[in-house]
Amino acid sequence: MVHFSKIAVVGSGAVGCYYGGMLAHAGCDVHFLMRSDLGAVRERGLTIRTQGTELHLAAPKAAATPAEIGPCDLVIIALKATANDALETLIPPLLHERTALLTLQNGLGNEEFLAKRWGAQRVMGGLCFVCLNRAAPGVIEHIDHGTISIGEFTGGPQPRTAGIVADFLRAGIEAKAVENLITERWRKLLWNIPFNGLAIAAGGATVADVLADEGLRASARALMGEAIDAARRLGHEIPESFADFQIERSHTMGAYRPSSLIDWDLGRPVEVEAIWGEPLRQGLAAGAEMPRLELLYRLLRHLAMR
Amino acid sequence: MVHFSKIAVVGSGAVGCYYGGMLAHAGCDVHFLMRSDLGAVRERGLTIRTQGTELHLAAPKAAATPAEIGPCDLVIIALKATANDALETLIPPLLHERTALLTLQNGLGNEEFLAKRWGAQRVMGGLCFVCLNRAAPGVIEHIDHGTISIGEFTGGPQPRTAGIVADFLRAGIEAKAVENLITERWRKLLWNIPFNGLAIAAGGATVADVLADEGLRASARALMGEAIDAARRLGHEIPESFADFQIERSHTMGAYRPSSLIDWDLGRPVEVEAIWGEPLRQGLAAGAEMPRLELLYRLLRHLAMR
Repeated sequence: MVHFSKIAVVGSGAVGCYYGGMLAHAGCDVHFLMRSDLGAVRERGLTIRTQGTELHLAAPKAAATPAEIGPCDLVIIALKATANDALETLIPPLLHERTALLTLQNGLGNEEFLAKRWGAQRVMGGLCFVCLNRAAPGVIEHIDHGTISIGEFTGGPQPRTAGIVADFLRAGIEAKAVENLITERWRKLLWNIPFNGLAIAAGGATVADVLADEGLRASARALMGEAIDAARRLGHEIPESFADFQIERSHTMGAYRPSSLIDWDLGRPVEVEAIWGEPLRQGLAAGAEMPRLELLYRLLRHLAMR
Repeated sequence: MVHFSKIAVVGSGAVGCYYGGMLAHAGCDVHFLMRSDLGAVRERGLTIRTQGTELHLAAPKAAATPAEIGPCDLVIIALKATANDALETLIPPLLHERTALLTLQNGLGNEEFLAKRWGAQRVMGGLCFVCLNRAAPGVIEHIDHGTISIGEFTGGPQPRTAGIVADFLRAGIEAKAVENLITERWRKLLWNIPFNGLAIAAGGATVADVLADEGLRASARALMGEAIDAARRLGHEIPESFADFQIERSHTMGAYRPSSLIDWDLGRPVEVEAIWGEPLRQGLAAGAEMPRLELLYRLLRHLAMR
């Protein structure tokens, strides 16, 4: 196991503040790179409200620039994927020779982005199954779940993977190492592609709305089928039954509004490329036919430009 | 040639008032079945403004019920296809043994609707290539074009087809008889399916918007390909080059807003079944694969229900 003695969090929104805050609370040396919330956090600290209790960090280490933080052992990246360009200048001051990069971002392409610029060996990814809300600057509301699945970009788990999993576990977060990170990303996309996408394209449809409309439900299932075929061609085996399970499981979610729909409704950027564009491009390049995903992607892309 | 001595117009919106009004002005015995505009038309007549000139019918025959009109030789149907249920009670009082029914409605399924209820031999269809606007009750603005292509539901042109074409020509309207009505409907759908559909699904995209977005343009072309394949399987030969021609032709239309988008924006019913649902069902039944049309239809159907 490798212990990361100095950790930076880049992108201190709800996800970054929650996971970084939990690690800091457990005694890790966490440095938050902040922009909009910096003043509030310096003044009042960082608060995480979770199931009736409140966890308060009175003086978290918060910086306005990466140079103030300097080289770290681990950089946790929790920016929206739509803001990846900013990483070009934010990451370099945080690197030493063996700094690991852990992206908690959605969809496909973020590991590749980091690998291309700073070397594939550095790159790890985490899939967060968590429901969070930023209630106010420096105040994060933890609504439900929280599991994080962590894997290596270049292959199976390494000692450092176990190290960060152990840190998260110590911090009270359900965490596990996964054998194949990108397979896990495809498994998560199987749900995000249809439910996040149809939510926006069908004019604000909740999970319950999609499931109650026989046609949309069939389209959700067909989109999953296209994703399974693409994933398979790319070497990620996902059984068809997993799609049926995902549909079934969704029935318990009620009128849940997928994160992309919330982004869309609030006028925030939607991660169109990470969730739809990149899976489409990778699937097409591997010879998959994805006519539904193609149309959905193009509609979402056009909608997001408006 | 067969002359229709008594004509009823059912559905006296812009299309019904324009074509019916032109026929009446040319001396045909036209009876308009009216609802919302009845009072205005009885008081001030029917006005058609066209390219700087104004054509006024001081006392058109307008009725509130089909019983007031009684049996006719020809019934022109210009209701929105979404209101077809109303025909069940509106049509019977207008029929004698040889009454012909001419539907000017959009999309597929309207001829079948009439044929199933009142006999296929009665049924004719007309495709209107016209740009109209109802400026006020009883006032129709004719903006551009006006060609009407008329055909028989059961086969090639008959003497009565030539008769109604001659009436339209006498009324100053470009008209022609077509050999295969349903083939013509598919040719028109080739444009309406993508451009009317993407206009709504992409959040209010004009023809120029669709063409300027490489992805949407490719989707429009792919939707046309699906429609060509379906039409072919149903016995309607449309060359692939016609789709390319339709895309090219659309470049001259600029920021044109397809009629369905106008309906959508005004909160009027959109003819989802006639333009997307029925072509999809007929195509699937003939063994075509139409994954893009399927998704587009389901999105539009869901949007239209909201």
